[in-house]
Amino acid sequence: MKTPVTVLGLGAMGTALARAFLAADHPTTVWNRTPGRSPELDTLGATRATTAAEAIAASPLVVVCLLVDATVRSTLDGLDLTGKTVANLTNGTPAQARDTATWAAKAGAAYLDGGIMAVPAMIGGPAAFIFYSGAPDAFERHQADLAAMARPEYVGSDPGLAALHDIALLSAMYGMFGGAQHALALAGSEKVSAVRFTEDFLLPWLTAMLGSLPRIAKDLDEGPEPGAAGSNLGMQAAAYDNLIDTSVGQGVDPALLAPMGELLRKAVAAGHSDEDLAALIPLLRAGG
Amino acid sequence: MKTPVTVLGLGAMGTALARAFLAADHPTTVWNRTPGRSPELDTLGATRATTAAEAIAASPLVVVCLLVDATVRSTLDGLDLTGKTVANLTNGTPAQARDTATWAAKAGAAYLDGGIMAVPAMIGGPAAFIFYSGAPDAFERHQADLAAMARPEYVGSDPGLAALHDIALLSAMYGMFGGAQHALALAGSEKVSAVRFTEDFLLPWLTAMLGSLPRIAKDLDEGPEPGAAGSNLGMQAAAYDNLIDTSVGQGVDPALLAPMGELLRKAVAAGHSDEDLAALIPLLRAGG
Ligand SMILES: NC(=O)c1ccc[n+]([C@@H]2O[C@H](COP(=O)([O-])OP(=O)(O)OC[C@H]3O[C@@H](n4cnc5c(N)ncnc54)[C@H](OP(=O)(O)O)[C@@H]3O)[C@@H](O)[C@H]2O)c1
Ligand SMILES: NC(=O)c1ccc[n+]([C@@H]2O[C@H](COP(=O)([O-])OP(=O)(O)OC[C@H]3O[C@@H](n4cnc5c(N)ncnc54)[C@H](OP(=O)(O)O)[C@@H]3O)[C@@H](O)[C@H]2O)c1
Repeated sequence: MKTPVTVLGLGAMGTALARAFLAADHPTTVWNRTPGRSPELDTLGATRATTAAEAIAASPLVVVCLLVDATVRSTLDGLDLTGKTVANLTNGTPAQARDTATWAAKAGAAYLDGGIMAVPAMIGGPAAFIFYSGAPDAFERHQADLAAMARPEYVGSDPGLAALHDIALLSAMYGMFGGAQHALALAGSEKVSAVRFTEDFLLPWLTAMLGSLPRIAKDLDEGPEPGAAGSNLGMQAAAYDNLIDTSVGQGVDPALLAPMGELLRKAVAAGHSDEDLAALIPLLRAGG
Repeated sequence: MKTPVTVLGLGAMGTALARAFLAADHPTTVWNRTPGRSPELDTLGATRATTAAEAIAASPLVVVCLLVDATVRSTLDGLDLTGKTVANLTNGTPAQARDTATWAAKAGAAYLDGGIMAVPAMIGGPAAFIFYSGAPDAFERHQADLAAMARPEYVGSDPGLAALHDIALLSAMYGMFGGAQHALALAGSEKVSAVRFTEDFLLPWLTAMLGSLPRIAKDLDEGPEPGAAGSNLGMQAAAYDNLIDTSVGQGVDPALLAPMGELLRKAVAAGHSDEDLAALIPLLRAGG
């Protein structure tokens, strides 16, 4: 028999996680604060617990997917976690992960903190992955079980590292989405179809521009390659004014764009006109 | 013989454009304010003009790639453009494009405004494209010539439309780069290698997340599909606080992330908690 698992939280994500365990034939116990959520899980064979304590008692591996860290703590506080492995996939900060790890150890549990890199529809599919950090032995023991949800990526025994990786990728995602949203608002200001603009131009363009990231990363690790930049920051700062002016002219709020303009100006003022985008990253660091 | 072409401006981009024309066997005349820039063009067969007027006289098609709109106007002002087609690929706003089109018409030229969707290294390659708008007959006449630089995408006779499309895509690109830069700064704060982080996680993640854009675009054109969002804005706004807190905790300036947090809060306050990212776009419009 596969390892019995418990899923606490049946929001959009917890429901997808429970479905993935059921699809992989894990005996799956579920609990949600509001009873009766995601009734399809009953049909698929889930056991529904009426309390979080009852749900935790049912399985050695307890997957937690609640709204925020405070929800996790209020849900688990005072419950017996002796001998359990808790994999907390609730989004949180590195500091929260470290605190929760300390708390879980006191409550008798082996603790893994996780960051889910997927939307619910991707769970169980090939592109989804989940960062884990914390107790290495717990990870080894349950790696195959966790793989039912998504490819596990263990990033270290410091429990804060999964959240760090997760938050870094979410930052990148929100930057990309914010830029795309601004682009779609501009396209819409001239009644350009969002679907056609996205398929014909936005996706191919962003896909091509992703190709610049490995070079930016290499410059960051090894220092910039000598020789003129293909897209120097002086030129970019000058062109950036056109992004702001166009947005204002088209009635689109430039708020999402403004901080990058300030960063480019700061880089030019600091003498980085002839460098390229990798030169901006140290300026984001404290004292940069 | 192929159409003779003139390229004004031999910065990183103008040089790449001139090389592409030379590679496609166009007789190519070049001019740059500072003489002698990009000497490799001479070896490749370019004719170097000593004044912009002399360069313009040499060809029916004049490609302009200077720093900003003001540079274009100061360079071309007072010169005879009678019978020429001017393809101005200098980055600018829709309003600048319309003004320059009016000015060029008075100077006797057919005017095409263009937006280059490529970095110099991509010119002549398969992923590069250039938006054009303005005189339709001039575009038809020179479409094959322009294709030597990059795939031409004609988006309408209003001369401002190429700039609108260009600026929209640049907005998306800077959003993506800004997010990626923030992600790399966070990864660097824990000494994670930028190259490994980018290859193993950042690129696969952003590539997967690009897959959400067609659905966002469809919701925007047709209204959101009924039924709960897979990633509701209430949950996203709650998680977003973790992005800011983590950045501050790791010594990374949250400036690039802050406006998206404000937009998410605004959306939640306006009652969009159960919707997803497409609901943010109307909030970017004036009065949204
Ligand atoms: N959806 C995604 O795309 C995605 C992706 C990666 C990570 N995540 C993370 O996964 C976690 C869950 O997200 P989701 O999309 O499933 O959110 P959701 O659909 O909004 O569900 C929220 C869940 O939290 C529970 N909850 C909220 N407040 C609670 C409280 N005070 N006590 C007990 N339970 C409470 C809800 O229970 P009720 O039903 O009783 O309200 C529900 O089970 C979040 O940390 C999110 O950041 C989500
Ligand atoms: N590089 C890219 O990735 C890229 C991508 C898309 C679009 N673009 C656009 O292409 C245009 C050129 O960019 P670039 O990368 O080639 O920039 P660049 O390498 O900085 O070159 C700037 C060019 O403008 C000329 N220039 C500047 N001020 C001038 C003035 N007052 N009078 C006459 N000429 C002047 C420079 O001549 P000197 O040599 O005499 O200084 C040089 O030829 C810009 O509008 C840019 O936004 C660039």
